Amino acid sequence: MQRVALLGLGVMGGGMAHNLLRANFPLVVYNRSREKAVPLGEAGARIADTPRQAAEGADVVISMVADDVASRAVWLGGDGALEGASSGAVLIECSTLSTAWVRELAGHAQDMGCQFLDAPVTGSKPQAEAGELTFLVGGDVRTLEQVKPILRAMGRTIHHLGPTGSGATMKLINNLLVGVQAAALAEALHLAENAGLDTAQVLDILSNGAVGSTVMRMKGPKMLSRDYSTQFALRWMHKDMTYALDEAVRRTVPLPTVAAAREIYRMALARGLDGQDFAAVVEVLRQG
Amino acid sequence: MQRVALLGLGVMGGGMAHNLLRANFPLVVYNRSREKAVPLGEAGARIADTPRQAAEGADVVISMVADDVASRAVWLGGDGALEGASSGAVLIECSTLSTAWVRELAGHAQDMGCQFLDAPVTGSKPQAEAGELTFLVGGDVRTLEQVKPILRAMGRTIHHLGPTGSGATMKLINNLLVGVQAAALAEALHLAENAGLDTAQVLDILSNGAVGSTVMRMKGPKMLSRDYSTQFALRWMHKDMTYALDEAVRRTVPLPTVAAAREIYRMALARGLDGQDFAAVVEVLRQG
Amino acid sequence: MQRVALLGLGVMGGGMAHNLLRANFPLVVYNRSREKAVPLGEAGARIADTPRQAAEGADVVISMVADDVASRAVWLGGDGALEGASSGAVLIECSTLSTAWVRELAGHAQDMGCQFLDAPVTGSKPQAEAGELTFLVGGDVRTLEQVKPILRAMGRTIHHLGPTGSGATMKLINNLLVGVQAAALAEALHLAENAGLDTAQVLDILSNGAVGSTVMRMKGPKMLSRDYSTQFALRWMHKDMTYALDEAVRRTVPLPTVAAAREIYRMALARGLDGQDFAAVVEVLRQG
Amino acid sequence: MQRVALLGLGVMGGGMAHNLLRANFPLVVYNRSREKAVPLGEAGARIADTPRQAAEGADVVISMVADDVASRAVWLGGDGALEGASSGAVLIECSTLSTAWVRELAGHAQDMGCQFLDAPVTGSKPQAEAGELTFLVGGDVRTLEQVKPILRAMGRTIHHLGPTGSGATMKLINNLLVGVQAAALAEALHLAENAGLDTAQVLDILSNGAVGSTVMRMKGPKMLSRDYSTQFALRWMHKDMTYALDEAVRRTVPLPTVAAAREIYRMALARGLDGQDFAAVVEVLRQG
Repeated sequence: MQRVALLGLGVMGGGMAHNLLRANFPLVVYNRSREKAVPLGEAGARIADTPRQAAEGADVVISMVADDVASRAVWLGGDGALEGASSGAVLIECSTLSTAWVRELAGHAQDMGCQFLDAPVTGSKPQAEAGELTFLVGGDVRTLEQVKPILRAMGRTIHHLGPTGSGATMKLINNLLVGVQAAALAEALHLAENAGLDTAQVLDILSNGAVGSTVMRMKGPKMLSRDYSTQFALRWMHKDMTYALDEAVRRTVPLPTVAAAREIYRMALARGLDGQDFAAVVEVLRQG
Repeated sequence: MQRVALLGLGVMGGGMAHNLLRANFPLVVYNRSREKAVPLGEAGARIADTPRQAAEGADVVISMVADDVASRAVWLGGDGALEGASSGAVLIECSTLSTAWVRELAGHAQDMGCQFLDAPVTGSKPQAEAGELTFLVGGDVRTLEQVKPILRAMGRTIHHLGPTGSGATMKLINNLLVGVQAAALAEALHLAENAGLDTAQVLDILSNGAVGSTVMRMKGPKMLSRDYSTQFALRWMHKDMTYALDEAVRRTVPLPTVAAAREIYRMALARGLDGQDFAAVVEVLRQG
Repeated sequence: MQRVALLGLGVMGGGMAHNLLRANFPLVVYNRSREKAVPLGEAGARIADTPRQAAEGADVVISMVADDVASRAVWLGGDGALEGASSGAVLIECSTLSTAWVRELAGHAQDMGCQFLDAPVTGSKPQAEAGELTFLVGGDVRTLEQVKPILRAMGRTIHHLGPTGSGATMKLINNLLVGVQAAALAEALHLAENAGLDTAQVLDILSNGAVGSTVMRMKGPKMLSRDYSTQFALRWMHKDMTYALDEAVRRTVPLPTVAAAREIYRMALARGLDGQDFAAVVEVLRQG
Repeated sequence: MQRVALLGLGVMGGGMAHNLLRANFPLVVYNRSREKAVPLGEAGARIADTPRQAAEGADVVISMVADDVASRAVWLGGDGALEGASSGAVLIECSTLSTAWVRELAGHAQDMGCQFLDAPVTGSKPQAEAGELTFLVGGDVRTLEQVKPILRAMGRTIHHLGPTGSGATMKLINNLLVGVQAAALAEALHLAENAGLDTAQVLDILSNGAVGSTVMRMKGPKMLSRDYSTQFALRWMHKDMTYALDEAVRRTVPLPTVAAAREIYRMALARGLDGQDFAAVVEVLRQG
């Protein structure tokens, strides 16, 4: 079986690692703070001290980190994974990143004689734990075929979107819609509150109507109960909308609704809500 | 059985009238241009020459027209329905209108000794024809009880939201979300096009993901095929977002995402897309 | 000399009245709360109990009130000025109002056999007191000629913009730019603060550069010192931008920048800053 | 006298170089396309083949290029100026760039033992030619003292804003206001056009009123005459607003008005107006 290295054991990476172990892939893991790796070590993974050490000897190296800065660090930083990766290895970047960085990273991979796939996922912690992620993959289709068994250990559905960067772009397109839907829902629910409507009833009607979506059904109740325990932190939602707008700049595509919504998220960041679930965006409106 | 008058036989009113006839309610209809009334005359309705004439002797008078101006004309204009309405009649305004006007109209109804309900609907032409509308009702709950058999002839679901104006407000809240979702989808699909992705695949992934909604599933294919045959005209979407923003002004509620999206619809109006389906909003982005 | 009635003795109307007295025009004044009229009574004006009483016998009736609602009340409400106005009198509406209401009011004036001018002013309290207002006039040019001596008693400059409503529209165009400039300045200064720049120096450079304007030079120091003693209340800035957007809706003109800025002012209203000077809009950004 | 190297002979750099020659500074120039350097060669400058060659032996190296990409290329690219710069030389970056890149560049300069100033300018072609630029300088004040004679050859006014990056930030703050003012003016003038006002009169009133600024007086006539001969290309205005928003992201500062305006400029880019003067932003509104 292919030897797998997994870099990044956060909310998502932890669940993914457990599923790789369950599927009996020989697994090396790396995490910046080692303590998150300990349970995986107990579950049978080898713990590496550096990304380079993790990548050495791996057939497939997977990264699941927070943003461009973290991805650059894990691949290209001191003792980075690219230094350790074997020629011919497949590098899979599962993080949600800017398309520009993903393309640059793919170039570095090629320089090292490695294959590269961008394969960000939809789904959050529960899906990661249950092995029910959806992969949005960009890159060579034959390379994808090689690693499908590995991806299938972590997710049910695999979409191949096109060449390198297509998966990253698809993910940003998805997340810009998540961000706008949540911001607009916040505005709608705040208007309903202010108009004296029964907001639970309003949310119920909306959720079962033409605008009803999983985002609405998950975030609406949090907005009403003001329970912002984090499923997906507001800072990451702002980051993803920022990456989407960066891509729109590069492609000369206007995104006026996304641009307006992103500023509200930034208002929320400025109020210190960065670590809360992004449903907390409604608080900006509530307090004017 | 209660004698019903129905004012306005457009895309929605026509289907509603047929369902009232099917349920054997004695029906008088009025439409500004008489020819639309003819088929209903053949189906058993009496055709009135004026709203007043329609309202005379009716137990329940229903209006289903385009906007505040049309509603004002049909109720309060020359030979308007309020002049003809019997004391004790129930007046039901099903149009999507500004909350301010609905409240004013309710006051006029009370002055005439009539009961009043605001009862805008969700669903469009097919639901109107199939008797599957959803009513969002504001006003006295006992009045609503009186007319439930009539509403049930036209729709499956009846939500009572609260006092007068609550139905109107709920409808605007729903439609502002429709407008934002379609604008954001247009931005997302245009970015996908520009990034060289397979837009049908993108739409499929989005529609089956966390942001998937009926709005997305109905409007996305129209955006991709550029088929803007009208289900709901862009001018009415712009109107509804305008009424929502008017309500936000009255209630001192910020709606920054809605405000940004409304300007895009107005750009579309300025390009002459007012009579197209509101999915045509994507054209503004496509042409810069 | 022409007998003048002045309705509304607020921040602006007070100064205007004094200048009319200085120019020896026989003056009747009306204000909703009588105490503001007392000093003018002492200075030689007759104090009327109602707008109607003020208008009776006047050759020229001037209104200077807060908004559409106040204007409607003073002209058309109980004991309104239109009831008292003599046929042939010239009615001058100096308030900043929606173009739609100004046009409706002009129609009522015509019905009463009166002439009508919309003549909103630029300048604030100091200019009103010094007789240095600028009048932006819409309506018949011969009517304007008749009242020029009166306007000249209150202002230096008189612009005739065109037919009825042109003055009102010009004023809204002016004020939408005021609102956007102040909002953008707030964003710029807040970014400068956050970047650790010397904001007084930044404001000085900006004020003396290509973007320097009187608005910037007046509002910038208030933003930096957080002194929001009211020259022009935030609620009126929000109102004027709302009227401008209403006009844009009627004329199918997109105003995306104005729309974004208005939402920030509404956020400020929601925080209770409505009675502060509109420079206080910066507080919304400061607190996220 | 200090030996000066000037990299970039575009609209701005050309005039700056001539003023350095007039002040008798020994000058080496470099431009990507050599033909723009020829007139300067005839006027007494030495023409270098590469940035490195230009920088070799210079006491002061000045860059005046289009954007981050061009700046990176000229300093750090193959045969870049940093390779040639002598230890102890002063490097001055006069281009309008992102603060992030300026800080990175300052770090590279320090690594090479060079001094660094960010010193972007306000003023455009005529000011560059007349030696009347204004310098907005970040960096060490003693370094600035060393090069003041050189800056004074090109500009009248020198503002020291603070440490490295302060000049760049000040310039972005200035230009975001330019961008918003022009976008808002475009909206205002388009509304005036649509309302049937005499737009030349409207612009005259605005220019002489509280919102009047040099930007308005320069760009307004272009918008009305639709003469978009380039003083400052729309693509650079979009770029500067993008850099400003990038800085706002880094500093967690909301810029909702700027964000809305930037999307309009991007709409203009998408219509192929990138090479026109940024006054052409009004065309997006005119055509819906």
